[in-house]
Amino acid sequence: MDKGRFITLEGGEGAGKSTLARALAGRLGEAGFATRTTREPGGSPKAEAIREMILAGQAKDYGAFAEALMFSAARIDHIDSLIRPALEGGEWVICDRFIDSTRVYQGVLGKIDPALLAALESVTVAGLMPDLTLILDLDPEIGLARAAKRRRPGEAVDRFEGETLAFHRNLRQAYRDIAAREPRRCVLLDATLSPEALAEAAWRAVGERLQTRPEA
Amino acid sequence: MDKGRFITLEGGEGAGKSTLARALAGRLGEAGFATRTTREPGGSPKAEAIREMILAGQAKDYGAFAEALMFSAARIDHIDSLIRPALEGGEWVICDRFIDSTRVYQGVLGKIDPALLAALESVTVAGLMPDLTLILDLDPEIGLARAAKRRRPGEAVDRFEGETLAFHRNLRQAYRDIAAREPRRCVLLDATLSPEALAEAAWRAVGERLQTRPEA
Repeated sequence: MDKGRFITLEGGEGAGKSTLARALAGRLGEAGFATRTTREPGGSPKAEAIREMILAGQAKDYGAFAEALMFSAARIDHIDSLIRPALEGGEWVICDRFIDSTRVYQGVLGKIDPALLAALESVTVAGLMPDLTLILDLDPEIGLARAAKRRRPGEAVDRFEGETLAFHRNLRQAYRDIAAREPRRCVLLDATLSPEALAEAAWRAVGERLQTRPEA
Repeated sequence: MDKGRFITLEGGEGAGKSTLARALAGRLGEAGFATRTTREPGGSPKAEAIREMILAGQAKDYGAFAEALMFSAARIDHIDSLIRPALEGGEWVICDRFIDSTRVYQGVLGKIDPALLAALESVTVAGLMPDLTLILDLDPEIGLARAAKRRRPGEAVDRFEGETLAFHRNLRQAYRDIAAREPRRCVLLDATLSPEALAEAAWRAVGERLQTRPEA
């Protein structure tokens, strides 16, 4: 059996990652591919438990490197127990956030030594790099307004959403830098498009980069 | 098929853990049990890579909590990829160092908040507690002399071996405290015994605590 392909979605708040994940899974399913959608942080029971630990803020005083390590520990379980077995079983895996979120949120914004973070990433991922990463590029003013709109009454603003606009501009730039540095893996998509047009653009990128039709 | 049993060995430097692991595996094999020996830190490829990162000291400035997180990330992979599958396949697993090493080295000696470490342990282990933990109890002056004797000419003193005698006395006490607090899981063994007598005592403990004979 052919191994599946591994697609990750990245971008700031309100960029439309989870909507796009569902749309892409639908198109892949129609095209006859067994598909699994998952997300980080979390995605497997142990990883979800670590996500809870992070959200509970128990480790927050230990800083961005501890946070990167917690995300890495969660990612190791997520890869071992879900992503790798699914790919080996021939499924396509679509993951909402993966290593680039750690690079951007803990690395660039948390100011962790890039060499240390790269070493940690290489150990964590151990060769399982995404085949394709779709980076949803959006002016943070639009993204934050969208995120605020979808919040239910009384729901708290999440930790990163509550950061300054300058923080979110740096975040956008950090994602653009990754896309520029790794053009073979990454495709930057315009997230101001309607959900339908964004799904269409993403589907085109998938078709160009990965083999979505049976080989002749 | 019956699930295997999970035995961990703990104790300070030079206490004889790896010799005992081999002896116990031999006896279990003679008794007809499929047995696997492993060790921490390490035990699986990803965990070994994290062990290398720790030994290379790249993360040492981040302190004992970061170290505990790195050991936990390694442990998650070790459990997912080796320990749990082996136990589910009916093998008995003997592991040289496990959670109690983290509790003692990073927790007690590294002064990490016990509640935080307990939360991390519970997420990491996720129910897979050892069925039996053999704690090899030894005066650190004897243990360190043994460890020095087995060192090859020119080989560096390892990081914990190079600590003060007071450190090693605290370490011994921390292990004794665990044995006293968790008598159902832990058995304290006198590591001044000869390797043969120690193996005999350990084998007796295994027979008393776990089912080593087919049920009648």
